[in-house]
Amino acid sequence: MNPVFTLEASDGAARVARLVTTHGTIETPAFMPVGTYGTVKAMTPEELQGLGAQIILGNTFHLLLRPGAKIIAAHAGLHGFMHWPGPILTDSGGFQVFSLKSLRRITEEGVTFRSPVDGSEVRLTPEDSMDMQLALRSDIAMALDDCTEHPSTEAAARASMERSMRWAERSHRHYYAAAEPPGGLFGIVQGGMHVNLRLASLEALSRLDWPGLAVGGLAVGESEAERLAVLEALVPHMPATRPRYLMGVGRPEDIVAAVLRGIDMFDCVMPTRHARNGHLFTADGVINIRNSIHQEALGPIDPQCGCYTCRNYSRAYLRHLDRCNEILGARLNTIHNLHFYLELMRALREAIRAGTLGAWAAAFLAARRGADAVA
Amino acid sequence: MNPVFTLEASDGAARVARLVTTHGTIETPAFMPVGTYGTVKAMTPEELQGLGAQIILGNTFHLLLRPGAKIIAAHAGLHGFMHWPGPILTDSGGFQVFSLKSLRRITEEGVTFRSPVDGSEVRLTPEDSMDMQLALRSDIAMALDDCTEHPSTEAAARASMERSMRWAERSHRHYYAAAEPPGGLFGIVQGGMHVNLRLASLEALSRLDWPGLAVGGLAVGESEAERLAVLEALVPHMPATRPRYLMGVGRPEDIVAAVLRGIDMFDCVMPTRHARNGHLFTADGVINIRNSIHQEALGPIDPQCGCYTCRNYSRAYLRHLDRCNEILGARLNTIHNLHFYLELMRALREAIRAGTLGAWAAAFLAARRGADAVA
Repeated sequence: MNPVFTLEASDGAARVARLVTTHGTIETPAFMPVGTYGTVKAMTPEELQGLGAQIILGNTFHLLLRPGAKIIAAHAGLHGFMHWPGPILTDSGGFQVFSLKSLRRITEEGVTFRSPVDGSEVRLTPEDSMDMQLALRSDIAMALDDCTEHPSTEAAARASMERSMRWAERSHRHYYAAAEPPGGLFGIVQGGMHVNLRLASLEALSRLDWPGLAVGGLAVGESEAERLAVLEALVPHMPATRPRYLMGVGRPEDIVAAVLRGIDMFDCVMPTRHARNGHLFTADGVINIRNSIHQEALGPIDPQCGCYTCRNYSRAYLRHLDRCNEILGARLNTIHNLHFYLELMRALREAIRAGTLGAWAAAFLAARRGADAVA
Repeated sequence: MNPVFTLEASDGAARVARLVTTHGTIETPAFMPVGTYGTVKAMTPEELQGLGAQIILGNTFHLLLRPGAKIIAAHAGLHGFMHWPGPILTDSGGFQVFSLKSLRRITEEGVTFRSPVDGSEVRLTPEDSMDMQLALRSDIAMALDDCTEHPSTEAAARASMERSMRWAERSHRHYYAAAEPPGGLFGIVQGGMHVNLRLASLEALSRLDWPGLAVGGLAVGESEAERLAVLEALVPHMPATRPRYLMGVGRPEDIVAAVLRGIDMFDCVMPTRHARNGHLFTADGVINIRNSIHQEALGPIDPQCGCYTCRNYSRAYLRHLDRCNEILGARLNTIHNLHFYLELMRALREAIRAGTLGAWAAAFLAARRGADAVA
């Protein structure tokens, strides 16, 4: 079934809403932990639920290569395969294919590429992407788009966007032609950093009915000012009654800035990838657990944090696990970072409901200013 | 405090007992998962408790090198450092030092070796090993022994055993001279495959009071017949009122055979190491999850098994995780293998209490015959 979005509160452009999907309800603004290969790295589904994750993201590109549609379909979809009972959003695979650069060839029909796993030639058309996402039985599928390079001239960005719009239409037609679509399909606004193209893309998408729209083509190396300029010009024109998903963003401060501008959904590998590299989020910035200043530190990562890791383990122990390349270290760090992100979303929802988002965000962003430096 | 051993039931040479230690009570026969670097690889303490682990083993050698005594002592010992509230047995470090071969030098005083971590010279005397184990505050510490090479002539095995006995005495003197020893010290019977030397070693140890005795120098490449010959000659002479610990053994069938001969405690890296290599224990033998026959297998590792992994995940999913080198794969496999070992110990205790061990063991060993072949 198509996800159903119900607004509950707003504060300026920011909103709190409920998104009801086939496998459950999501409170927005929501962060989606990324489960690339059918697992949010190092976590069990029960741990994710305990941390407050309401929806996770699955990567169509990776799952297409390993283990392939047939095996996942035999498990009645990705939920059964990975034992995650809640909502799943799948991307289209396009972003990863376009990242392959020299290994891929784009035509109007779609993309062909060499599998980085076994070198075989793989084709990904809008129809192929829909078939794979239908096999995954995700609650939210994404249209296949042509990912605009950054930076791009206006002409190049326009050609890419217009192809994305033709692919969006093919995606929509193919997805909803399925006998019983397991979820709903989101369209993706493209257009690079060119505001006029972004608005044209939104206009093109509005000819079809989408249960939600995403902003694609950001988190590609643009400056914060470029990203915010796109959001500020685009988001006010996006349908207020549908969820808005900013793909691949990002740092905690980026998420706060985007929520302030009316974005409802986020995904990013940062909390999980940072965790495995020993980079841990705190209210005061990111600490690097590999730093020798933590060698004899008996306190937790963050004394204010209530996560399992901070309640039970010292920084000295976490640093030791990291040095010894112990799996438990990756686990404990991931728990902490996901807790940080999911608590951030909870705090954002609370501030919106309370009508105090402006002050809350100002304080949060002030504390993070210059917090990129890793201690 | 010294652990206190209370026999509760016996069946032939096999016994069920309770071993009360500073941090809790262990039911024997017991299997101790190995926590080399202050973590049983891939597991949290809560997961280990959920699996029924009552005691874990810590490796003095590894912890001496990383993170060292000072940091663990600052956490009030290994329990606090690793957040494991239950009993811990620490080995002496000797076995690992002797495995270094070309990197170590043995004198009557002790062993010196080059750290495999940073190349620095490290000394390990009986007194050093006791100081480290006192700093770890383990519930059960082990005397430092000279690990006899296998195979060894009787003369070489005798010289090695006699040195072990002198080191055992120094270990005992130093450990119990501590102001408040956190636990108790076990002696280790050596003597290689030479039964007369084993009995002489036991005789030498009996001059001191030990709360438990171990059989060392097995699981070094000897045949099953050699190992059982040593156990059959030695165990009947070991004090019946104290726990008997067979170090480093082993496969499920080896544990059953040793319990039948009166052994109470075991440790081995096999369940956890096998798990990370995709080798999974079942009643019918070991399966290799990497084998392509599991590629599309929708069933669990073992339909008879009640562990978290078997209740929730298919072999196809576990194979996929292994192929993608996903941390969750190591976790789920470890849960399954530790569950197998800990359920085995539970079944052994039940059979001993019921007086049915002979029949139970015969059926178990018959099913495992030839089960070494990995499917």
